[in-house]
Amino acid sequence: MDKQPPRIVSSLAELRSARLLFDGKVGLVPTMGYLHEGHVSLARRAREECDHVIVSIFVNPTQFGPSEDLSTYPRDLDRDLLLLEPAGVELVWTPTPEVMYPPGFATWVEVEGLTKPLEGASRPGHFRGVTTVVSKLFNAVQPHKAYFGQKDAQQAAVIRKMTRDLDFPIEIVVCPTVRETDGLAMSSRNSYLSPDERTAAAVLFRSLSAARSAYERGERNAQSLRRIMAEVILSEPLAKMQYVSVADYDTLEELETVAGKALLSMAVFMGRTRLIDNVVLG
Amino acid sequence: MDKQPPRIVSSLAELRSARLLFDGKVGLVPTMGYLHEGHVSLARRAREECDHVIVSIFVNPTQFGPSEDLSTYPRDLDRDLLLLEPAGVELVWTPTPEVMYPPGFATWVEVEGLTKPLEGASRPGHFRGVTTVVSKLFNAVQPHKAYFGQKDAQQAAVIRKMTRDLDFPIEIVVCPTVRETDGLAMSSRNSYLSPDERTAAAVLFRSLSAARSAYERGERNAQSLRRIMAEVILSEPLAKMQYVSVADYDTLEELETVAGKALLSMAVFMGRTRLIDNVVLG
Repeated sequence: MDKQPPRIVSSLAELRSARLLFDGKVGLVPTMGYLHEGHVSLARRAREECDHVIVSIFVNPTQFGPSEDLSTYPRDLDRDLLLLEPAGVELVWTPTPEVMYPPGFATWVEVEGLTKPLEGASRPGHFRGVTTVVSKLFNAVQPHKAYFGQKDAQQAAVIRKMTRDLDFPIEIVVCPTVRETDGLAMSSRNSYLSPDERTAAAVLFRSLSAARSAYERGERNAQSLRRIMAEVILSEPLAKMQYVSVADYDTLEELETVAGKALLSMAVFMGRTRLIDNVVLG
Repeated sequence: MDKQPPRIVSSLAELRSARLLFDGKVGLVPTMGYLHEGHVSLARRAREECDHVIVSIFVNPTQFGPSEDLSTYPRDLDRDLLLLEPAGVELVWTPTPEVMYPPGFATWVEVEGLTKPLEGASRPGHFRGVTTVVSKLFNAVQPHKAYFGQKDAQQAAVIRKMTRDLDFPIEIVVCPTVRETDGLAMSSRNSYLSPDERTAAAVLFRSLSAARSAYERGERNAQSLRRIMAEVILSEPLAKMQYVSVADYDTLEELETVAGKALLSMAVFMGRTRLIDNVVLG
């Protein structure tokens, strides 16, 4: 098909009308905007697998904590649209906070268990905001498939669990993390980094890679893998480690020994910018 | 169309396959079975307004408290099917608890505010179970309209709120309470009543009617209306009042003065059987 600029709709009524015109399989790529190659790779995958692609752009206030970066989160809709056009995205939904959370809004979707450790421990209430807004996006868009990045590994696990538990008739597709040439996982928040911090931020993937190499050489002691990760992070003066984790891939419970599939993950502050990254073992 | 016995499906896969064959508008009537004329009136209304009608029958364990009547809740599927056939119901979904809540189930839908007073105060966790299972029914069946009885007034308000807040593309239709000739609201739980209790149970509607008459004669003081209701209940030795309420119709907050639309409601024990009823003023 010809590549045309995506149509932009902001109200729920416009979205539903536009959605009704789509026959066949519909793919949804939920984003908070300020798109990068990671988001575009999700849109391209959706374009390959579906007849129509809808991208939502919404900086969701309910997944930010009171001391987090909601007000400063980067936004640039014109740039986002330029990136989405060549990916063949037809419709971009940009609801306002008032559309998503009108006065008196009072309904929450919450996944227990999986949301407690890691990001859930560092960011209380974060996943309740994520699952609530994703439920709303699912109901509004009614996609057949929805695309998420592996970079937010716990989010992907939580959304898969919610989708199964609540019987959403939607296939969750998790796509590989897209990285800069030095290994830094692409993230809208990378735009916060000073040049020095940006250079130093490659330490996250170096740390994960060091642990992965040790695993490949036979290391199965989870505490040893955590120590390897922590030592690499500590070697970078600009980095402040929040957590490093070696967890069961499905339950996200911390492991003593790596037997099956495992998730190595971490959160690290570079100055005031909080970065996360992960790799999967096994 | 010819009336045929409804088809029964129990697994989610069967339900989805059967649902795919339905063109046009689909109406859902969620029930816990042991049907009475109130349920049948919902199915008939759905039949009038939709091209296809699906009735779900599921005694939902998560909306029962630990000391409530889950294990003794009445069940009679054969009788239910005989009642639904003349109403033109094509499909009956009878999921098992294992289908609805497989091991590891961990996702909950919760409405704040509206769920706190009245039934929510008497039955902690009840509405969380209701909104979670209704979300699952909505996602599994994907109806255009869903039918609920006014007899469970707070439930209807909570489900309307959840549907709006989460953007379910579903119209909620609330149908009038169907009553026995002595005014007792039809309920599956009426089957628990002894003959004496059954006779005495007419006191709920007598109490509501007395308050409504006072309102129609000009009484606007909510406490006076509550007193009228309570006095009628107290006059029946077999009845034990749990609450009487005069609340704002939309917020369910207790009123001092009845100005706009109001809900008169009550919960009363007849022996060990808990009965609820309500009427709307204004």
